[in-house]
Amino acid sequence: MKALFFDGLMPHLIETYRVPEPEENEALIRVLMAGVCATDIEIAKGYKGFRGVPGHEFVGLVERVRSPYQGLTGKRVVGEINVGCGACEFCAKGMEKHCLSRTALGISERDGAFAEFLTLPLKNLWEVPEAVSDEEAVFTEPLAAAFQVLEQVHVKPSDRVAILGDGKLGLLIAFVMARQGLNVVLAGKHASKLALAASRGIKTKYSGELQNRPGYEVVVEATGSPEGLNVAVDIVKPRGAIILKSTFASRKNGEPSECAGEVDRRAPIDLSRLVVDEITVVGSRCGPFPPALEALAAKRVDVKSLISAVYPFGDVASAFERSQEKETLKVLLDFRP
Amino acid sequence: MKALFFDGLMPHLIETYRVPEPEENEALIRVLMAGVCATDIEIAKGYKGFRGVPGHEFVGLVERVRSPYQGLTGKRVVGEINVGCGACEFCAKGMEKHCLSRTALGISERDGAFAEFLTLPLKNLWEVPEAVSDEEAVFTEPLAAAFQVLEQVHVKPSDRVAILGDGKLGLLIAFVMARQGLNVVLAGKHASKLALAASRGIKTKYSGELQNRPGYEVVVEATGSPEGLNVAVDIVKPRGAIILKSTFASRKNGEPSECAGEVDRRAPIDLSRLVVDEITVVGSRCGPFPPALEALAAKRVDVKSLISAVYPFGDVASAFERSQEKETLKVLLDFRP
Repeated sequence: MKALFFDGLMPHLIETYRVPEPEENEALIRVLMAGVCATDIEIAKGYKGFRGVPGHEFVGLVERVRSPYQGLTGKRVVGEINVGCGACEFCAKGMEKHCLSRTALGISERDGAFAEFLTLPLKNLWEVPEAVSDEEAVFTEPLAAAFQVLEQVHVKPSDRVAILGDGKLGLLIAFVMARQGLNVVLAGKHASKLALAASRGIKTKYSGELQNRPGYEVVVEATGSPEGLNVAVDIVKPRGAIILKSTFASRKNGEPSECAGEVDRRAPIDLSRLVVDEITVVGSRCGPFPPALEALAAKRVDVKSLISAVYPFGDVASAFERSQEKETLKVLLDFRP
Repeated sequence: MKALFFDGLMPHLIETYRVPEPEENEALIRVLMAGVCATDIEIAKGYKGFRGVPGHEFVGLVERVRSPYQGLTGKRVVGEINVGCGACEFCAKGMEKHCLSRTALGISERDGAFAEFLTLPLKNLWEVPEAVSDEEAVFTEPLAAAFQVLEQVHVKPSDRVAILGDGKLGLLIAFVMARQGLNVVLAGKHASKLALAASRGIKTKYSGELQNRPGYEVVVEATGSPEGLNVAVDIVKPRGAIILKSTFASRKNGEPSECAGEVDRRAPIDLSRLVVDEITVVGSRCGPFPPALEALAAKRVDVKSLISAVYPFGDVASAFERSQEKETLKVLLDFRP
């Protein structure tokens, strides 16, 4: 099969990569479309030392299942990316995503979605409703990461919410929270991205225009910059909550990735402010697929507006290049004939 | 009256300091005993630029009240230290402790307890039950800061809890949590302080002996060192909670203060770990007095074991010196005839 392979130096498109063989209770999935995420770009730069096929945002068709349960065979699915060992306390509690020996599709120890086929356990898969197009379905994974904010923190109707960062993830979080009627302002640095949010009725501000008085009960930090948390601390109200979405793969500022792996990159934080103002900081990563799929099916979140370009998979090099341009939002790869 | 006055250079015992005049709805309180806190030591080194009478842990007698309500006149009381402006949104919500224009007894813009008299609003005062001695009552304020951990975070019976730091605050938190039957281990660097905890049936470890696998669902950071949070991140389980009690008044390691003011002291933190492991960090400061007073009245927390020395107020200089010795826990000042 055709696959993009990263050998530690640079990604190569290989025509004769071995089709993966599903293990017990896994499915073989034929990829229909995949999305390029900031993590993929970082992986192509050596992030996490990953070797293999990158890519973790996808929609595909279940080609074959190695299990007595065949209910998903032939179905169109999206898949959660973390695969636990199945034998530890986290897996026993259904927290595979925090299993210490987990693999992650296209990120850690498991070939990913920039290939004609991939494998995932059946329990990671969710059937895509008919009302959701392939293009939209690819957004399930990042949209789930946006919903995760509301899974972790109780945001009240009376709260003022600031979302820092107008990248894909910041925009998706703004779409989700604004659609729930929450009092949201999105802050960023890109005129075109802020304009996109504004055209969806979302209040926007340029970074730096945010007021530290009276401040915000809830601040979502999705800038991708280590400085983002300090900005959040400056504008959050005492007893407020900061939801931390940014991981940092490199020293230069980049867009946060909603499912990035672990890197040891320390940022200097004013801890005394956290204590004195009794601020809560909540780390937040991948999220639940069902509400994301439901929102897509009901057209409650306009993810199509985030698509900057669609490239055939054969032109993945151009897709990666385009993905790194400043005003680009989501770039999709099309595997369909 | 006699008062310890800090002029920005060093504290002086002044014999003829002006007795404070209570404002509307405030009480004039004759101090019986006061406790020396790490914050007082920091203030004497110039922390926060405070000028005036330090001291914020006390028990006293209500001498006179400027209010139609006279129910507290003549009573023995302890007092919450933060005084809000009374006119802002935080005060309107009963969050005077987070009022942006607040004063704080002996810490910020308000003369404190190292004097024969002090003033506080009536609503800050709590009558001390007869079963609580003066010595014990002085611990109400730091004990309330220990209880604040349980006000902010739901610690479950099945959680493994690590408390980092065997100073006064770490010990009080360990006493409170262990007494509730929680599965607590106290980690520190001082043999005598760990032995004190062990003699109360609390599991102890030397710092560095804590296991990062399987780790702890809840970690209370009370080391007073900026590195403490990174240790906490290393040993907390994914999805776990870190309660941050330490503020940092100086670069060298010191004991945390439960009610310290604001200083801009940044510590380098691995934010990616917070995100990937979805850790919650909760800043925690002063706490509620009623559960602390109840615990003291019921002798559920043995605060007397934390008293290293009692000095007459006239010998406050010796008290400050003693307070800074390595093995010292709480030093009290006695104002009684």
